[in-house]
Amino acid sequence: MLIVGELINASRKLIQTAIKEANSAYIQQVAAEQFAAGAHYIDVNAGVFVGEEAEYLKWLVTNVQQAVNAPCCIDSPDPKAIEVALSVHQGIPMLNSISLEKERYDVFLPLIAGTDFKVVALCMSDEGMPETAEARVKIADKLINELTKNGVAIDNIYVDPLVQPLSTSDIYGVEFLKAVETIMTAYPGVHTMCGLSNISFGLPERRFLNRTFGIMAIDRGLDGMITNPLDKEFMASVIAAEALRGKDEYCGKYLAAYRKKKFEF
Amino acid sequence: MLIVGELINASRKLIQTAIKEANSAYIQQVAAEQFAAGAHYIDVNAGVFVGEEAEYLKWLVTNVQQAVNAPCCIDSPDPKAIEVALSVHQGIPMLNSISLEKERYDVFLPLIAGTDFKVVALCMSDEGMPETAEARVKIADKLINELTKNGVAIDNIYVDPLVQPLSTSDIYGVEFLKAVETIMTAYPGVHTMCGLSNISFGLPERRFLNRTFGIMAIDRGLDGMITNPLDKEFMASVIAAEALRGKDEYCGKYLAAYRKKKFEF
Repeated sequence: MLIVGELINASRKLIQTAIKEANSAYIQQVAAEQFAAGAHYIDVNAGVFVGEEAEYLKWLVTNVQQAVNAPCCIDSPDPKAIEVALSVHQGIPMLNSISLEKERYDVFLPLIAGTDFKVVALCMSDEGMPETAEARVKIADKLINELTKNGVAIDNIYVDPLVQPLSTSDIYGVEFLKAVETIMTAYPGVHTMCGLSNISFGLPERRFLNRTFGIMAIDRGLDGMITNPLDKEFMASVIAAEALRGKDEYCGKYLAAYRKKKFEF
Repeated sequence: MLIVGELINASRKLIQTAIKEANSAYIQQVAAEQFAAGAHYIDVNAGVFVGEEAEYLKWLVTNVQQAVNAPCCIDSPDPKAIEVALSVHQGIPMLNSISLEKERYDVFLPLIAGTDFKVVALCMSDEGMPETAEARVKIADKLINELTKNGVAIDNIYVDPLVQPLSTSDIYGVEFLKAVETIMTAYPGVHTMCGLSNISFGLPERRFLNRTFGIMAIDRGLDGMITNPLDKEFMASVIAAEALRGKDEYCGKYLAAYRKKKFEF
């Protein structure tokens, strides 16, 4: 399971303030905590700073990589901001995200074509948000085909089938899960990844619902998540789910996590 | 989701003592608590009392049904004991369980043929415990065909695909889940049910593992469980899982459970 730590996002008040005040110590602390908790990539997002996104994204990448020996997931729709951030990035980054929306597709493809970058491929198109599993898979199919044709290895593609709120439609959970299973079966080598929390938008006990949904998604084959790795109970669920899913030989990781007290929360 | 409350089982020390001491008050309290927590059937098992099982099972049925307006799940391999228990049972019972083991099959079939009883059909045969999903489905297929041929409505059949310990083989979780999905898809109208706790045998943090596995099984279509309905966190998981699975219109049951404080534990 690939974990992208989601906490360094300027839409969060504390991060926004830290960026404005150039508070390196706080950003580095949040990066270090996420890395210690198991994040493989540290997401950086400065999207709220219109006009200054590029500069702040670059500052975030620099600070994160001073704190931890991990790549960043550069989370921006702006190719200019991404290029500036990439100019200081060490190692192989992940870009979040390309989609089938023409405007976004056209600016993202040149950034990743022929590179070793990891890329999140979001199941969105100019026809609007997909409702069914079929509509999600249709977009995924086009994205996977186009990206691989343009020299992106299938192993570097993380399809995000797009989580939508269950409070909006009863079928959004089921259709998402079906899409994960279909994509993971039909395109061997590709990955699937998502943020889970949209599923519970508008409902109470959101963390409980997110965790339950995450377990189902792992069972269907999801192998990446943009999440809060400091949520110990959620991270323990991931470990248990992977063992139950048959991906943990002799339950070795499960038992190691238990010995490291990862089930104490 | 059909819930069978599992607590009145003489293999549990407190129940065994209560039976020996003819402590009606305690048995009735455990029955009432399970019913209040959402159990649709109250399991009764007096299997540890060799030679006295029939008498004790009858006493349990009588006491349970004095306390709650619910049917029992009569949990015994002994046709004599079952008949004695049935002689006092009110309403439509569930029998736990028939299997494809010749000795058990031959004595159970006459008990249920042509009745309206619910029956648990356990995926076991004289060839030993099934390892793969395929082997489980093969047994389920025979049981479903034989039972329906003998006048048992498919809606009264609860196939138990047999949960085995993950600590014994990495594939037991996956194969069980595949079996649930296949059975629920291939035999419209049939149900699947199981006790979950075998999955975690030999591993630490068993409740956590059982709950995670239960969520996956519900996602695959499992619609019955023999479980402890007093485990509030588990019961809340069931409600969340059913909503995510698209079986809870407008999340109505989820929201009602929230208002009834069922997510407080």
